[in-house]
Amino acid sequence: MREAFRDELAALSGQLAEMCGLAVSAMERATRALLECDLSLAEEVIDDHECIADRNRRIEEAAFRLLVLQQPVASELRLVVASMHIAADVDRMGALAVHVASVARLRHPECAVPDEVRASFAEMGAQSVQLARTAQEVLLSRDPDAAARLRDEDDAVDIEHRHLFTLLLDRNWHDGVCSAVDVALLGRYYERFADHAVEIGKRVVFEATGGLPVYKKLA
Amino acid sequence: MREAFRDELAALSGQLAEMCGLAVSAMERATRALLECDLSLAEEVIDDHECIADRNRRIEEAAFRLLVLQQPVASELRLVVASMHIAADVDRMGALAVHVASVARLRHPECAVPDEVRASFAEMGAQSVQLARTAQEVLLSRDPDAAARLRDEDDAVDIEHRHLFTLLLDRNWHDGVCSAVDVALLGRYYERFADHAVEIGKRVVFEATGGLPVYKKLA
Repeated sequence: MREAFRDELAALSGQLAEMCGLAVSAMERATRALLECDLSLAEEVIDDHECIADRNRRIEEAAFRLLVLQQPVASELRLVVASMHIAADVDRMGALAVHVASVARLRHPECAVPDEVRASFAEMGAQSVQLARTAQEVLLSRDPDAAARLRDEDDAVDIEHRHLFTLLLDRNWHDGVCSAVDVALLGRYYERFADHAVEIGKRVVFEATGGLPVYKKLA
Repeated sequence: MREAFRDELAALSGQLAEMCGLAVSAMERATRALLECDLSLAEEVIDDHECIADRNRRIEEAAFRLLVLQQPVASELRLVVASMHIAADVDRMGALAVHVASVARLRHPECAVPDEVRASFAEMGAQSVQLARTAQEVLLSRDPDAAARLRDEDDAVDIEHRHLFTLLLDRNWHDGVCSAVDVALLGRYYERFADHAVEIGKRVVFEATGGLPVYKKLA
């Protein structure tokens, strides 16, 4: 029985990592759709979100079933509880990728991102996707040190995000209000996406150590 | 023993409602700080957030302890699991109120909100605070019908939010890019605050009915 339970726990981790992989792919494609003004790619990301939402529901159901049937304690209970929180984080990451794709779609055939902030979005997109990929690996390795490092890696996203606002609020911004609003909201979506990857790391540390996560970022 | 457990569950609901009351107060004061350019009120909201974050930790610990010690099943298990999700939602609501207060502080002694969108923010502020207040009541009454109505009430916030963007993207916007960026992000904070109140309603419905929440808004 316990062995079957451990198998179910491992399966749950596998499902989480797979779900996180879907969010990685969604943000990667959303960024490409944004930078290359690719309408069909943007629509693909938007349509695919139902898959991520469905995974969230299934993981929550599976975790709930484990709580009812196995009444886990200690580290196993922490793992089950953390899984529900992590699935919710990944679901939000998917939703944020959809927001990016939606802006790309809304402005098509124009490009939502003016030339002067293009490099900044390419950078933030790459950093965010990389963070999510690390979160995905950590969901399988359960390595608390790698999980804790996600927080440090997020600093690069925050620096790029601040740089974006410097460009945006510069007196030389000539792309108008509509474009400035798009850029500000897009920046926020990337920043939040990366924050959720950090939250996943925090949960993995919690599982491994039993300590409640203590740091909190007000993003 | 079971009676003691029921008392603990009731206490948990009480703590959640109290925590939600803190978020109501935070957003109410943040809105006042924003509209009246009140620096000390803005700083008060920012300083007070630690209280909300601390409640989140304590509720999560209490819920975890109940899972370990009481191994609840059925509706009681749903209640404990939902409590953890709800505490996380309320924590985000508090963080979003801090964001509003931070914009007010950043622009002081100027007012972050230009006259032409002032009424819009007053409206969105009142609606969001009212939604959070309903969520707080629902946490005590556990009335699934009232909880489900939160979603309909959120429509008013969405309508006002869209109206705000109409004003912002109008050709007559003369307040410049910096102000437009503030207004766009502020609008987003209110919209997300209200969404979290809706999420709380969804969780209460889930507890009452045992059905997993099916609607999902990509905000």
